[in-house]
Amino acid sequence: MKSNWNYPTTMWVGKNRIKDLSIACKTLNINKPLLVTDSGLAKSKIVINVLANLKEGGISTELYSDVVGNPTGTNVTEGADYYNKNDCDGVIAFGGGSGLDVGKAIAFMSGQTLPIWDFEDVDDNWTKANSDKIAPIIAVPTTAGTGSETGRASVILNEETGVKNIIFHPKFLPSIVILDPVLTLSLPAKITAATGMDALAHNLEAYCAPGYHPMADGIALEGMRLINEWLLEAVNNGSNIEARQNMLTAASMGSTAFQKGLGAIHSLSHPVNALNNIHHGLSNAIFMPYVLTFNKDAIEKKIIKICDYLELKDRSFDGFVNWVLDLRKKLDMPHRLSEVIDEKNFDIDRLSKMALADPSTGGNPKKLTENDMRTMYQHSMSGELFK
Amino acid sequence: MKSNWNYPTTMWVGKNRIKDLSIACKTLNINKPLLVTDSGLAKSKIVINVLANLKEGGISTELYSDVVGNPTGTNVTEGADYYNKNDCDGVIAFGGGSGLDVGKAIAFMSGQTLPIWDFEDVDDNWTKANSDKIAPIIAVPTTAGTGSETGRASVILNEETGVKNIIFHPKFLPSIVILDPVLTLSLPAKITAATGMDALAHNLEAYCAPGYHPMADGIALEGMRLINEWLLEAVNNGSNIEARQNMLTAASMGSTAFQKGLGAIHSLSHPVNALNNIHHGLSNAIFMPYVLTFNKDAIEKKIIKICDYLELKDRSFDGFVNWVLDLRKKLDMPHRLSEVIDEKNFDIDRLSKMALADPSTGGNPKKLTENDMRTMYQHSMSGELFK
Ligand SMILES: [Fe+2]
Ligand SMILES: [Fe+2]
Repeated sequence: MKSNWNYPTTMWVGKNRIKDLSIACKTLNINKPLLVTDSGLAKSKIVINVLANLKEGGISTELYSDVVGNPTGTNVTEGADYYNKNDCDGVIAFGGGSGLDVGKAIAFMSGQTLPIWDFEDVDDNWTKANSDKIAPIIAVPTTAGTGSETGRASVILNEETGVKNIIFHPKFLPSIVILDPVLTLSLPAKITAATGMDALAHNLEAYCAPGYHPMADGIALEGMRLINEWLLEAVNNGSNIEARQNMLTAASMGSTAFQKGLGAIHSLSHPVNALNNIHHGLSNAIFMPYVLTFNKDAIEKKIIKICDYLELKDRSFDGFVNWVLDLRKKLDMPHRLSEVIDEKNFDIDRLSKMALADPSTGGNPKKLTENDMRTMYQHSMSGELFK
Repeated sequence: MKSNWNYPTTMWVGKNRIKDLSIACKTLNINKPLLVTDSGLAKSKIVINVLANLKEGGISTELYSDVVGNPTGTNVTEGADYYNKNDCDGVIAFGGGSGLDVGKAIAFMSGQTLPIWDFEDVDDNWTKANSDKIAPIIAVPTTAGTGSETGRASVILNEETGVKNIIFHPKFLPSIVILDPVLTLSLPAKITAATGMDALAHNLEAYCAPGYHPMADGIALEGMRLINEWLLEAVNNGSNIEARQNMLTAASMGSTAFQKGLGAIHSLSHPVNALNNIHHGLSNAIFMPYVLTFNKDAIEKKIIKICDYLELKDRSFDGFVNWVLDLRKKLDMPHRLSEVIDEKNFDIDRLSKMALADPSTGGNPKKLTENDMRTMYQHSMSGELFK
């Protein structure tokens, strides 16, 4: 199986497509790429093989692997300096969400004179960029979750304020994406499960977001179908190439679809990711049924459409919530937020404020107040769904 | 309703979005666009208003309207000369399939030294182009059918050989597309019906084509859902803006989805479009049930998935075929090809050969022979579906 797709960008899909990486460089006239990844992956056989393969293909590659879990502005600035000092002419963003986000941001910042925070995704900030100076990007995801490879933004932590900012520019969208399931075969089950639930949250919230975007709706539904069919298999049998491929695809689809909007699952997640250091996919999985039941009267019809599309046994709103609860249980994930956050570290005032201010809030099917956020947090802690 | 989409390209969607055309020009740094359209539209109030609006927006526009129904290489060459003589710096491709196809081809040829036929969509011909010299394109469809606005090719008639060639280059994809339903309000019911059936054929054949492309599958299903919901309304009540908008969207989706592949409906259509001068949408509508029943054992499962998605009453293969037959009847379209082509003008040998050689043939769910094409033509003439 080997497929080439042309939207949302050029995508090379299939087993061992990573071997086409040097062709991707040549296609984009990249002679000296900077491969950006995290320090763990940098030492892995995967990256060692990739570098060897590039060399064989006549591409001499620089490596920048000073990328941390919650990538920071310093990561980006130092990477951009490294890029320029080494006369690189393109970026290979390689890894999970962090590696991809930093790689994209380095490609962007390598040609800018203004500081990175000037390009926060507010109003038309991105138009301040010198867009001719943005380096071409090849993205290679090694997890199936964030879908950053098909996104036009990076999430970067501002160390001074402690806030994760979204840096946006249309040219953050990689010029070529390689979706090779072989790169994800060694992911531990826990990461497969959590990232998979992130991909589910993207497709689900995109489908339920208001707004007219039928292409996003169709992509989101098909993305959820793939997840229903393949996530458990990918978790339980990590070496199943077909399952891994379909999860990679579903993750790219989620990020493609959520240009339409996200919602309260992500609004509630981002603050506990930042303040309580909970994995983003795990918190999405926890919040999902609470947000669904909170939004019920605004989304019931759409949820039944999803039930039909996924061919669930019980094609009702409750049937869908039960499907989520059941999936979460099979993935060995907690039902209550209190199982992963201590009450005493749970600053619900601050969290609720942050949740309301989160950019995802605008996509929620119901208009939300700070009190709604608080209520949803409370229910998530106690384990009680909304009626 | 006003939406901006980012794939498969930048799309500005909604009532009166045509008023943003001068902003589109400025966004692409186009100061002197060449507006390409057919001679009928050129004299219409629509185009007169558009030109006035552009002038108001500070954009002085040149007009090239020497475009015929089956656009020719001469149309393109003369248009490209006109473009260069007038120092234009971008193209507004405006109209139905012909206007869009010629506009895109002029933008392409304005910067090439090789003749147009060197870029026929065979092997890697497109790589022979000087891709830095391709002018930026804004596409504005005024019919909801071909979806040329989201396509990366143009169909151009070679007057010497009498064959319609596909000219392909990735940069044929317009940089900005405007989907404004107001521009389609005055389309006659017959054209609305035929172009709508073309859009249906694109979504249907794309969904049934083999190959791994889940994004295309999701888009195709949702495109068919829109057509089921809105085509009859658009035909019967042409001034319904919502129906017009949804048909424009479904047409763009069809062309986006069919990058996955088309099939025998199009293979059989193209030859009778060229030799017998039958409208492409009409011939697609005629061939649809014959091709469906011919392909039955390869597509039955997928067809039932479509039935479910469209929430048809009878969710079986036959139920779907009956839905097509019923829709065609309501659109006042013939069941038999013999109702529009005289037996004596029906050169089935030549047609079957051309059909087999058509680029769409590769996407058909069943492998096809020249004799299969002949059989399908025969059934289409006699009116007998396959069992
Ligand atoms: Fe997420
Ligand atoms: Fe067509």
